Amino acid sequence: MANPTIVWTKIDEAPYLATFSLLPIMEAFTKDAGINWELRDISLAGRVIAEFSDMLPENLRQSDELAYLGELVKKPEANVIKLPNISASVPQLKATIKELQSQGYPLPDFPEEPQNAEEEKIRLKYLKCVGSNVNPVLREGNSDRRLAEPVKEYAKMHPHPMKPVEPTSKSYVAHMDKNDFYQNEQSFIAPRNMTVAIEFEGKNGTKKVFKEVELEKGEVFSGTFLNRKTLREFYEKTIQDAKEKDILFSLHVKATMMKVSDPVMFGDAIRVYYKELFDKFGKELEEIGFNPNNGMSDLEAKLAKLPEDKQKAIKETIAEIYKKQPRLYMVDSDNGITNLHRPNDVIIDASIPATIKNGLKGWGPDGEVEDTVITVPDRTYARMYKEIVADIVKNGQFDPTKVGTVQNVGLMAKKAEEYGSHDKTFFPPEDGIIRVVDTENNEVLMEFETEAGDIWRAYTAKEVAIIDWIKLAVERAKESGLPIVFWLDSNRAHDANLIKYVVSELAKYDLSDVEYHIMAPEKAMRYTLRRFRKGLGTISVTGNVLRDYLTDLFPIIEVGTSARTLSIVPLLAGGGLYETGAGGSAPKHVEQFIKEGHLRWDSLGEFLATVESLKLARKQGANEKTEVIADALSKAVGKYLQNDKTPKRKVGQLDNRGSHYYLARYWAEELANCGDAELEAKFKPVAKELVENEEKILGEIAAVEGKPADIEGYYHPNEEKVAKYMRPSETFNKIIDALR
Amino acid sequence: MANPTIVWTKIDEAPYLATFSLLPIMEAFTKDAGINWELRDISLAGRVIAEFSDMLPENLRQSDELAYLGELVKKPEANVIKLPNISASVPQLKATIKELQSQGYPLPDFPEEPQNAEEEKIRLKYLKCVGSNVNPVLREGNSDRRLAEPVKEYAKMHPHPMKPVEPTSKSYVAHMDKNDFYQNEQSFIAPRNMTVAIEFEGKNGTKKVFKEVELEKGEVFSGTFLNRKTLREFYEKTIQDAKEKDILFSLHVKATMMKVSDPVMFGDAIRVYYKELFDKFGKELEEIGFNPNNGMSDLEAKLAKLPEDKQKAIKETIAEIYKKQPRLYMVDSDNGITNLHRPNDVIIDASIPATIKNGLKGWGPDGEVEDTVITVPDRTYARMYKEIVADIVKNGQFDPTKVGTVQNVGLMAKKAEEYGSHDKTFFPPEDGIIRVVDTENNEVLMEFETEAGDIWRAYTAKEVAIIDWIKLAVERAKESGLPIVFWLDSNRAHDANLIKYVVSELAKYDLSDVEYHIMAPEKAMRYTLRRFRKGLGTISVTGNVLRDYLTDLFPIIEVGTSARTLSIVPLLAGGGLYETGAGGSAPKHVEQFIKEGHLRWDSLGEFLATVESLKLARKQGANEKTEVIADALSKAVGKYLQNDKTPKRKVGQLDNRGSHYYLARYWAEELANCGDAELEAKFKPVAKELVENEEKILGEIAAVEGKPADIEGYYHPNEEKVAKYMRPSETFNKIIDALR
Repeated sequence: MANPTIVWTKIDEAPYLATFSLLPIMEAFTKDAGINWELRDISLAGRVIAEFSDMLPENLRQSDELAYLGELVKKPEANVIKLPNISASVPQLKATIKELQSQGYPLPDFPEEPQNAEEEKIRLKYLKCVGSNVNPVLREGNSDRRLAEPVKEYAKMHPHPMKPVEPTSKSYVAHMDKNDFYQNEQSFIAPRNMTVAIEFEGKNGTKKVFKEVELEKGEVFSGTFLNRKTLREFYEKTIQDAKEKDILFSLHVKATMMKVSDPVMFGDAIRVYYKELFDKFGKELEEIGFNPNNGMSDLEAKLAKLPEDKQKAIKETIAEIYKKQPRLYMVDSDNGITNLHRPNDVIIDASIPATIKNGLKGWGPDGEVEDTVITVPDRTYARMYKEIVADIVKNGQFDPTKVGTVQNVGLMAKKAEEYGSHDKTFFPPEDGIIRVVDTENNEVLMEFETEAGDIWRAYTAKEVAIIDWIKLAVERAKESGLPIVFWLDSNRAHDANLIKYVVSELAKYDLSDVEYHIMAPEKAMRYTLRRFRKGLGTISVTGNVLRDYLTDLFPIIEVGTSARTLSIVPLLAGGGLYETGAGGSAPKHVEQFIKEGHLRWDSLGEFLATVESLKLARKQGANEKTEVIADALSKAVGKYLQNDKTPKRKVGQLDNRGSHYYLARYWAEELANCGDAELEAKFKPVAKELVENEEKILGEIAAVEGKPADIEGYYHPNEEKVAKYMRPSETFNKIIDALR
Repeated sequence: MANPTIVWTKIDEAPYLATFSLLPIMEAFTKDAGINWELRDISLAGRVIAEFSDMLPENLRQSDELAYLGELVKKPEANVIKLPNISASVPQLKATIKELQSQGYPLPDFPEEPQNAEEEKIRLKYLKCVGSNVNPVLREGNSDRRLAEPVKEYAKMHPHPMKPVEPTSKSYVAHMDKNDFYQNEQSFIAPRNMTVAIEFEGKNGTKKVFKEVELEKGEVFSGTFLNRKTLREFYEKTIQDAKEKDILFSLHVKATMMKVSDPVMFGDAIRVYYKELFDKFGKELEEIGFNPNNGMSDLEAKLAKLPEDKQKAIKETIAEIYKKQPRLYMVDSDNGITNLHRPNDVIIDASIPATIKNGLKGWGPDGEVEDTVITVPDRTYARMYKEIVADIVKNGQFDPTKVGTVQNVGLMAKKAEEYGSHDKTFFPPEDGIIRVVDTENNEVLMEFETEAGDIWRAYTAKEVAIIDWIKLAVERAKESGLPIVFWLDSNRAHDANLIKYVVSELAKYDLSDVEYHIMAPEKAMRYTLRRFRKGLGTISVTGNVLRDYLTDLFPIIEVGTSARTLSIVPLLAGGGLYETGAGGSAPKHVEQFIKEGHLRWDSLGEFLATVESLKLARKQGANEKTEVIADALSKAVGKYLQNDKTPKRKVGQLDNRGSHYYLARYWAEELANCGDAELEAKFKPVAKELVENEEKILGEIAAVEGKPADIEGYYHPNEEKVAKYMRPSETFNKIIDALR
């Protein structure tokens, strides 16, 4: 068997910079395991270059390594450590293009408004680099997320602050009680490979086929819609209630991910909250092309198109609205940025945990913290948030030194569920019926009576993904000894079909040592929280949306951040994908690094991912030393945390590079006493050297701090310079490079 | 093997009378099967006599045959046809005592207010004969209910009237949206045989143990409560909404069955609807001991205790209330009997189907039909009614000639679920905590924060019952080829535990030919109705309450009555219990019979039960002719229905006795061509004789009609006289008796 290869991804911003220091250490310490390391470029700049390589001179070309990895993850030999990359917005894309052009890349500008077919083609190519385009390609498996033991231990000894909650808190979660996605869902399991057409027939005779969708045998296909009129009535009522209770109004959706449906739900909140504005200036707002789905920032940007007196009148009306309506939850009260400013500003899976950490309070317009109504329109997932918020009001704030842990096994493979719904989301142009029809025999499989503008969407889960997900849940239960809870709602047509799979799949396992439950999210939350408050662990086994929500919610409560979560994607084909840094690629860290040469990125996620990746490499043919090396790394991480060698925020304090020194040192110390004679003999002197040179190495690192690090670029810096800045200690480099 | 015995029960009122004509026919036609028939007395009068036999002279004594049957149903040889008996009220009990006393039975009077220990003892003995005391003793199994094929066929050809529903109907189901039984439920599965204590600790220090409960290993124990304050706020809001929508207000509970909790929920509706009355006359109402839980009839009965001017003032206030509040749904608008008159007048499982049949309308105070709000406070079961009502508004009234069928497999054995909660229902005397504690180690298993007066209840389902129920569902699916739907809500803690059993039990069967689903009641209703409207059949697999509700709901929609439902209780020990006549024991039929000698009771249920009972007898050792005889009876029933030989309502038309003639004739005709030479030889002449004597026999029956039938009693008539009246045709008797 050939040596297995671990792929390390080259990405963007802070974790990209850290890679230049860390990857050599990884290579050095795993030399004896018989592993190849490969760096594959899926950075935003790299993808732009690859996409346009046919237009570039030969020396500037790059192959499409995302496509390469997309193929790799379908093979059993895949073993990929995927660091956090940018989910680029168009402005970020444009900045990247500009930077590359300045570096001599003859790239076309981004065509904002394409004038011909050629420009349209260019625009589409660029748009392939925008948004969440990496994860769907790589995530060829379900999700296994949890906090590694040393991380959890560290948090218990160094708890993050959680603001107390008063039992008189008026904060609560508001949701619709009818005509939402939750209520209107229908679902079926495809009895064979088939093609279904999503058709529309309007009351006024409009007929059209929205889309045809190929389904595999056993695929769960579900459709539902949310009635916009009911949504707006719900907003009206909730805004009224916030006013009466004299608390903030806040809306929590996920427009970044649910990018077709959620901006519309966001826009409706604006249409209701600022109703008076639309009543008075509807014509003018339409003229300037204000789209509430883009937030009040869109109005701000377009307001200048109107004559000054109109602008003034509009601003006055808005000021009056703020007097009459409940105060808004602020994203940035210093700068007057409200919850309704931009749809991407308030991302439910981050914003609700933040509100919880903040004692169930948000910031009001005057910069004071206040109770708030937490508006989550659709009941499908709102009710589990309602449950935890009510639990906190009743039982008080969570104590990170005492709570248990909640791990997750998430159904994610093959664009499962709502997160795969973007291309199957439609807005009926008039009142009418949406039908899902079997194209083979024209049988109507589903029928929905919708009104003009309603949000209709379909989503699916493939049999192979579901079966793997259940298998993963059982494996995790057996490995951990923790109970698994399938968060499935028998009142949802979609979940009722998943329950059928759970029933038939669970029958295939010996469950004598497994405690399992099937509970709807609300009940599952209640069950889980009872254990959580007693310090016990529970594994949530959920669909794709709850995977996303819960793997932020609980890690943030437990350890203050979800960035430290171990995120494993056991690939369907047998390989493994190890994702790190759910907290993002940290642009602020880069700014600080460029300004004052201090990189505060913590590579903890990469350390933990490497432990898991090495374990897989062993299964893939790496030699038996691999286990010893992985185990030593895990212990080193424990020491790293216990001795608090994580990077600190300020220049002059320990930074990312210094933290890597400690990681390497502890790892060497562990290997010097690992029981494997060869490794011990090799690493004893290394450990000694590292300990003895502590002051010198840290001094060499400190020497480059406090001044700008000119890396000649942000999205596509000069890598020689990056390497120079990221490996400033000759002493440390010498020790490491001797091992490589 | 000894000849198997079929037990026929002697009960009360119309089916009791019919027995005197029918049982001889059953004995005569099954003579060759090698079966014994036994009549066992579980009538109200019979039970009173048995209970007090130690006080009676020897010749009047009777043994306790209900106790005998209670033992029998636990044995594999049980084969019992159980006809509908009286669920006696205290007034009915008193009438029975009076009648027996008049017949020379030296029974004590019923002590209304016992003055000493002796009277208390007598009272308790009498109370053993009151209410639903027979079914819990006999139902040592789960429930299998469905419409027999001939009944369904008949209904399609002779559909009962269903009033059309306008799409503008304002009728809807209103339910609570928080703090109800549904929300507050907790549940666990007993890990071993154990004793739990239900304890209360009040905020003011009151401590008491409500009860200790023995649990078997594997028993699902669940507890929940409903907050009374929230209930009353809900009533307030719903009454207001009925007023605004200008429709009737109606409340639907089941005080007859849920006899501890539901009267209190009923009383709260009175407290809210008539609030002004309590505000003005609270003191007076308390003085006279008016208990709203007993309905406004209780006030009517006690009002005379007040001075006349007070009475007048109270009546005037009530009249004013009726002007201000929404109009009430009337039970009997001619006599001014409202929905709130008596808690037992509106029984949800009958009243909602009646409203559906009536085009989603009820009768208002002026005798006009009107739309109505259908108030069902607790969400646990309200939402499935809400679903069907909304479906009817949307899709129109059901057409009995086109709809499919909905059968039921119900979890009923061993007092399953809420229907076994009476002795575990408590009302916290003050605000405080109810705990369920493991008495072995004092571990707190559940904790509920209740307020004074809240309704708390616990209920259980035993493992043996649950496992048998799942087995029965799978068997029924295989027998019928219909899909089975487990109506289980993963959002209920109790149901989540049942789902666990379903998961582990289903794994034990080959389900390749079984379509099954697990859906919450609301969704299950939607799924079922889609099939139902397409003419397809579905089996609902439900808990005990839904068993009760659905086996009225669908038969009433399908065939106009639930009395024609085949109701089988496959006993846990292997025997069978065949219940007939879910429609009750028909007091009005007896009144008509006594007045004008016409008995309009239809023995169809008994015919169908006998077919099933014979099939079981065959398995219990009856000879192979049994199958032929049963099959012939089944075909005879088909003819009976197709030729419309059911009893008619008016004197001079075909009555119960005449209908038995036709049953016997068709049965004989079938046996005359059954393929068994011996039986054919025997029944050919019988059939011929019956056909030839049709006019004569019907004439002999008609001769005794149109005049009173003096049977010298209602609860305990003179049986010689009954037999004489019920077998008036010498010609028919001769033919039948020759076969016995």
